[in-house]
Amino acid sequence: MEKYSVIYTKRLEKVWDWMAQEGIALVMLEDSEARRDQNIRWLTGHPGDALLFLSAERNAMLAAWDVNLAKLYASRAPVVIIPYNDFDRKPLTALSVMTKTLRITSGSKIEIPSVTPYPVFLEYVGELTEYDILCRESGAAVEMKKMRAVKDDDEIAITKKAADLTNEIIDLIEKNVRSGKIKTEADAAMFIQAEARRRNCEGTSFETLAAGPDRSFAIHAFPSSTSAPFASNGLSILDFGLKYQGYCTDVTLTFTRELNHKQEKMVTLVEKAAKNAASMAHNGTPARDIAAAVDAVFSKAKKQMPHGLGHGVGLQEHEYPILRNNASNEWILEPGMIFTIEPGLYDPVLGGCRLENDVLITESGQEVLTNARIINL
Amino acid sequence: MEKYSVIYTKRLEKVWDWMAQEGIALVMLEDSEARRDQNIRWLTGHPGDALLFLSAERNAMLAAWDVNLAKLYASRAPVVIIPYNDFDRKPLTALSVMTKTLRITSGSKIEIPSVTPYPVFLEYVGELTEYDILCRESGAAVEMKKMRAVKDDDEIAITKKAADLTNEIIDLIEKNVRSGKIKTEADAAMFIQAEARRRNCEGTSFETLAAGPDRSFAIHAFPSSTSAPFASNGLSILDFGLKYQGYCTDVTLTFTRELNHKQEKMVTLVEKAAKNAASMAHNGTPARDIAAAVDAVFSKAKKQMPHGLGHGVGLQEHEYPILRNNASNEWILEPGMIFTIEPGLYDPVLGGCRLENDVLITESGQEVLTNARIINL
Repeated sequence: MEKYSVIYTKRLEKVWDWMAQEGIALVMLEDSEARRDQNIRWLTGHPGDALLFLSAERNAMLAAWDVNLAKLYASRAPVVIIPYNDFDRKPLTALSVMTKTLRITSGSKIEIPSVTPYPVFLEYVGELTEYDILCRESGAAVEMKKMRAVKDDDEIAITKKAADLTNEIIDLIEKNVRSGKIKTEADAAMFIQAEARRRNCEGTSFETLAAGPDRSFAIHAFPSSTSAPFASNGLSILDFGLKYQGYCTDVTLTFTRELNHKQEKMVTLVEKAAKNAASMAHNGTPARDIAAAVDAVFSKAKKQMPHGLGHGVGLQEHEYPILRNNASNEWILEPGMIFTIEPGLYDPVLGGCRLENDVLITESGQEVLTNARIINL
Repeated sequence: MEKYSVIYTKRLEKVWDWMAQEGIALVMLEDSEARRDQNIRWLTGHPGDALLFLSAERNAMLAAWDVNLAKLYASRAPVVIIPYNDFDRKPLTALSVMTKTLRITSGSKIEIPSVTPYPVFLEYVGELTEYDILCRESGAAVEMKKMRAVKDDDEIAITKKAADLTNEIIDLIEKNVRSGKIKTEADAAMFIQAEARRRNCEGTSFETLAAGPDRSFAIHAFPSSTSAPFASNGLSILDFGLKYQGYCTDVTLTFTRELNHKQEKMVTLVEKAAKNAASMAHNGTPARDIAAAVDAVFSKAKKQMPHGLGHGVGLQEHEYPILRNNASNEWILEPGMIFTIEPGLYDPVLGGCRLENDVLITESGQEVLTNARIINL
């Protein structure tokens, strides 16, 4: 095992322990265009388009679409790489072969992804009649996503680096907006893209959303950016993130210029909500309570936020935990969780204002990793 | 109906006709982060994050996450816009309310998306006990995707415009690579992004894949671009597309410089395969035959292409028809279909070569809309 990195071995062991506990003989994970699953990257380093088979005997087989790429990225994980094309790129065919290769005894439990569509599930059950095929809402893939909600030391270190790079870019954006070098939405989006590449990021964690005063009313501007003026009179929103060694940041700045009284009130409320929320984030706090507190701030001012308060960030831009004011939200914050806090208010006439930062829960409190802010011009 | 655009009305009528034929009382479509469905944009103009309910009585209700955005984009479609938040953003809750609002009689057939996960399907069946819940592999959403494989006149006009813009950018890239202005992978990717914005595109249809000689062995370079040299000695691949008024192009150029004999042979084979394939594309040709012909060209030279020959392009970068040499591929080309032809060969040492263009099937033959090519430096 020495040639392998301890990170991947540790993560795989965690999953294998869980499988033993659940009495599952084989787990299949799928990352495809239709159904993305970052668990494969988390467990092997391979960034995608693959199936991963994990057996109770602690074997891992990675069926990769692009074997050359897998050899490069999964070389530090204790997995055997095989070509997905050998199975005609059909997950069911691959699984069927793997039950033989890995000698899964008949009658055992095999778990397929929770997101397997119902008609596809029927095919699995119809084909693999000698096994007990599990497809559960809280199955293996979801269990791994829950594990990923608490970041390990490597993940925290990478995310902090990603946050530092994000902060450098935030400062540069402010400077360039003030100097007039960034004038349009597209200027802002392109600037971020270029600076991300310059810093050896894999890219942005999603397409930068830059919305000048005419378009900031939308929660997520569509299209993501245009040649319209940015940071002109009114409220402008800039929502972006970096992807660094696989890990995402996600921040939103609001630029304000020549606001009227109603717009100023929106900004004050959003800033207040963000500050309250961050100060509430501690080990043991129910995530729902923080979202409820923000809703209360807004509702006192007869305003309503049309989206959740935040979400985990990691290998995906949206992951666990969820910060939403729902009865069903049972997430409790704990050290190692990294998530956004992003209160926002939107009005078809006044425009929108959102402030989003990434927060890490520590043993003793919280660390706001990013430095997004309301910038008054 | 006069205030509405005939395009959307026509498309909706097609779907309603199909529903009548199938005896379906209500269809729900879902576009969400986890399960994207461009059918909603196709039917209403609204670009996403919404549910669409279509009843046999020919009513259409659009439950949009961002109502302000929906009012802007779906204003030309005969649909009623309602806030998704009213249903706590739960598709099942929304569907449950809609059965009452639209007075769906008990015992009727209701179709939910084919991609509904098995565990979620169970929730629908458990909740909506008085209806016959359909979740079929070839259900409503798939039927619409099949309809979308043949583009209507509006779609062909928009795609031709997108292809013209793509061709302008291809010429500029060649010029800038030759002049030395584009030196790195990131230079190429950033240049495309900027030129796309300048031409009022919504963006690129996917993240531009720019791979210099050291990374072109991968089918899809990862990360998508880096600061490594591009178009230096060897084989470099540039795979990109524009998204214009919702419609995608998808092309791949290969740049060659100082090739050895083996690399030259790869390039010659790929060019030959691309030419053969395009000349075979006619009304009535089985898509599989074209893919088989390309496989035959490569296999005669003891080479193998590790991916399919092509795919439809439209509102999605990958849609129907499929050009793949599979026994199960039953696609027959017909006028109005627009798809890629993209033969490629890859070698861990020699690098990769791919040539991809977008082809429209016409009454009398085919039109190659894009002008991607192998560029010898």
